[in-house]
Amino acid sequence: MADLTKLFYPNAIAVVGASRQPGKIGYTIVKNLKEFGFQGRIYPVNPNANEILGLKCYPSVSSIPEPVDVVVVSVPAQKVLDVIDDAGKAGAKFAVVIASGFKEVGNVELEEELVRRAHKYGMRVLGPNIFGYVYTPSKINATFGPRDVIPGNVAFISQSGALGIALMGMTILEGIGISAIISIGNKSDLDDADFLEFFAEDPNTSVVLIYMEGAKDGKRFIEAAAKTTLKKPVIAIKAGRTEVGARAAASHTGSLAGNVAIYEAAFKQAGVLMARSVEEAFDWVKALSWNPLPEGENLVVITNGGGAGVQTTDTLADNGIYLKEPPKYLVEEVKKFVPPFASLANPIDITGMAPVDWYYKAVYAALKDPEVHSIIVLYCHTAITHPVDVAKAIIDAVKDAGVRKPMTVSLIGGKEAYEGIQLLTKERIPAYPTPERAASAMAAIYKYLKARKYVEERLKS
Amino acid sequence: MADLTKLFYPNAIAVVGASRQPGKIGYTIVKNLKEFGFQGRIYPVNPNANEILGLKCYPSVSSIPEPVDVVVVSVPAQKVLDVIDDAGKAGAKFAVVIASGFKEVGNVELEEELVRRAHKYGMRVLGPNIFGYVYTPSKINATFGPRDVIPGNVAFISQSGALGIALMGMTILEGIGISAIISIGNKSDLDDADFLEFFAEDPNTSVVLIYMEGAKDGKRFIEAAAKTTLKKPVIAIKAGRTEVGARAAASHTGSLAGNVAIYEAAFKQAGVLMARSVEEAFDWVKALSWNPLPEGENLVVITNGGGAGVQTTDTLADNGIYLKEPPKYLVEEVKKFVPPFASLANPIDITGMAPVDWYYKAVYAALKDPEVHSIIVLYCHTAITHPVDVAKAIIDAVKDAGVRKPMTVSLIGGKEAYEGIQLLTKERIPAYPTPERAASAMAAIYKYLKARKYVEERLKS
Repeated sequence: MADLTKLFYPNAIAVVGASRQPGKIGYTIVKNLKEFGFQGRIYPVNPNANEILGLKCYPSVSSIPEPVDVVVVSVPAQKVLDVIDDAGKAGAKFAVVIASGFKEVGNVELEEELVRRAHKYGMRVLGPNIFGYVYTPSKINATFGPRDVIPGNVAFISQSGALGIALMGMTILEGIGISAIISIGNKSDLDDADFLEFFAEDPNTSVVLIYMEGAKDGKRFIEAAAKTTLKKPVIAIKAGRTEVGARAAASHTGSLAGNVAIYEAAFKQAGVLMARSVEEAFDWVKALSWNPLPEGENLVVITNGGGAGVQTTDTLADNGIYLKEPPKYLVEEVKKFVPPFASLANPIDITGMAPVDWYYKAVYAALKDPEVHSIIVLYCHTAITHPVDVAKAIIDAVKDAGVRKPMTVSLIGGKEAYEGIQLLTKERIPAYPTPERAASAMAAIYKYLKARKYVEERLKS
Repeated sequence: MADLTKLFYPNAIAVVGASRQPGKIGYTIVKNLKEFGFQGRIYPVNPNANEILGLKCYPSVSSIPEPVDVVVVSVPAQKVLDVIDDAGKAGAKFAVVIASGFKEVGNVELEEELVRRAHKYGMRVLGPNIFGYVYTPSKINATFGPRDVIPGNVAFISQSGALGIALMGMTILEGIGISAIISIGNKSDLDDADFLEFFAEDPNTSVVLIYMEGAKDGKRFIEAAAKTTLKKPVIAIKAGRTEVGARAAASHTGSLAGNVAIYEAAFKQAGVLMARSVEEAFDWVKALSWNPLPEGENLVVITNGGGAGVQTTDTLADNGIYLKEPPKYLVEEVKKFVPPFASLANPIDITGMAPVDWYYKAVYAALKDPEVHSIIVLYCHTAITHPVDVAKAIIDAVKDAGVRKPMTVSLIGGKEAYEGIQLLTKERIPAYPTPERAASAMAAIYKYLKARKYVEERLKS
């Protein structure tokens, strides 16, 4: 098992190839590191500059007055080996190699030499061909991606560069809190398994999301992912789910994307939840990172529109989840305020007449009923209520009930519904614009429980 | 075939149950009708008011000084029959019955009597249990939903009330232009088939979207939908796609949602594209209503990120679409500016280094190449470019090329990507936040061609 402590908790980070020119990668990395608030020392390395962004500049890693733990290498490929030598001699522990121009363009030997050289000095390599890494507990943003990542509990490992940076931006838009982002690139040395082993034990991480094109060592990946699954969910977007997709992935990275069926089997063995799309993965991440796990299978759906309820029922059924009759206490509570024609099956239809306080009362009652284990709340924006008020009622019910159960919400409508979703997002209540997405996200929570159980039993036997 | 001309092109509309009280349904309908700009006469009917929203009020339909074509009925269920008699005697042609409390709560007889009574006067009934209807070419918004529907070419028929209103709001948020919205409710008289027959011939409508719980007359629906498919796409969200969903739908509307397999077969016969979710339906509607149809199967994907390309390849493969080698002219054009390591297979990867003008040039070349029939453009927000500039480059390329081909775009990233999507939406270029959605929307265009061909051949034989 790789010891990644000093990668995530470094005392000092050097950036080789630091630049004074805004827009350059070597500039953005120094800027992000500084402005995201890293509390250790930051040493820009550039023989032609005295100062970058107010930080004293050094001509080489070995000229820095203290040992650095991490060296971020942002120089052209052909200069990387020299930097490795310099950094290795200076006692650095990790080389984070941004540079591209290695195995992904056929330079296999250069990449192998890079790793050999680094290992000679006891140094581990992240990359090459990456956009850097983030670890919010240490206030590290050593990427040339967006700066203002939201601190949180999700670790994201991306094998894709451009897509990875774009998704980094999407986490901000979607309000998803990040513990770590690892651009893993060519995986010349450190790979998914190494990071999974770290995140499994990391108290700052509760969900791991992986964008994976191909695994370096399938068996080790399964082992590490299975161990992680026992403690927290692992969600993967597998590039090349289909045979043609796999061929496209292989031509893209040069890495073998592998046989589709083999990956499916491997993910199952490891308990990894396989998302078919970026959106699905993000939806699941929200549901799993913001919710506790349910204590049982009694899922209750509350809606003001039959149609939204049916869409949810359909999507749950697609995922093997079948709604049961709602528990008695909840039904009795809801009966107190809904009209006689309201349907008190499951979904519970509090009708299109439902004012804001019916939402409050229904959600509150569902949280208080010990026989309810999880809740989907659906709201169709009608003329009677404003989605923001409904969002507030849901938030108040959660606060007042003093109980947290797995919950997903859908506010369906226009601009106002979108505002309501943002309000719920701020309170870390996963909310979506369509009922099917709320249902799929809830289903992911139950899928995780099943996957974990499967792994537990497999490891026992 | 029902003659719906006067429903969609009325000279005068009466609103029975018009109210002076903001928030009331009978107030909102008059307000929407007036403020959305209906150019015919609007007659509020309320025996206890002289004026509503500046419009002279009448005590009954028969006291209105001219014959009205449409009577919107927003009074309690038990008063509806009297209104029908009054309106019928006054020569009204359509009763749009907002009121609920009919078959959906077990009052089958009342509903049957309503239709009998209306037919006695030669009047047709839309509803009951509906939120009204919209027809933008005549500037009619006779609903209590949102007012500012965007005029356009999509007709939306909704059997669900609350969900229907919410989706009406969503069309505004998503920038989807509407020709008509029909809340079809209990379908006591006019049903989907009647409206399909109208929309098939309606020059203002080029796509029909249906939210359907159950059909009244399956055979007639298939006939009408098939005829429509020959001229324009019909997309359906079928509530109760699954057996349990169908049971939930049946308990919700009292209408039989029917056997899942039967519906699937019926939709296939009719060439109806079945969307699994609201989001999918809306994504498809955009792609089909804003694009011409492709002249062939050569779909080209342009991307700056291999990962986004692979996700797209996977989703296309899920939909039975397999990318071919890109045409020579396009490849030669792209070769002129991309670096040597760019992948010129399909997806064409113009690399993460791609500045804005590479997007312009690649899209322009693809539009100019007669062997390219359709285009998916993918963009991952990286540090080099701003998504809004990329959106502008795509828009410029389309304008400058002077050719319109089916195109879907995905701008992947954070807030800035969202802004770029909105810019493209304004130009009616369908754009999505994830590559899979852009791929699924493009696939829907090809699915329509297949469905149409199937129906053509079926009707021939």
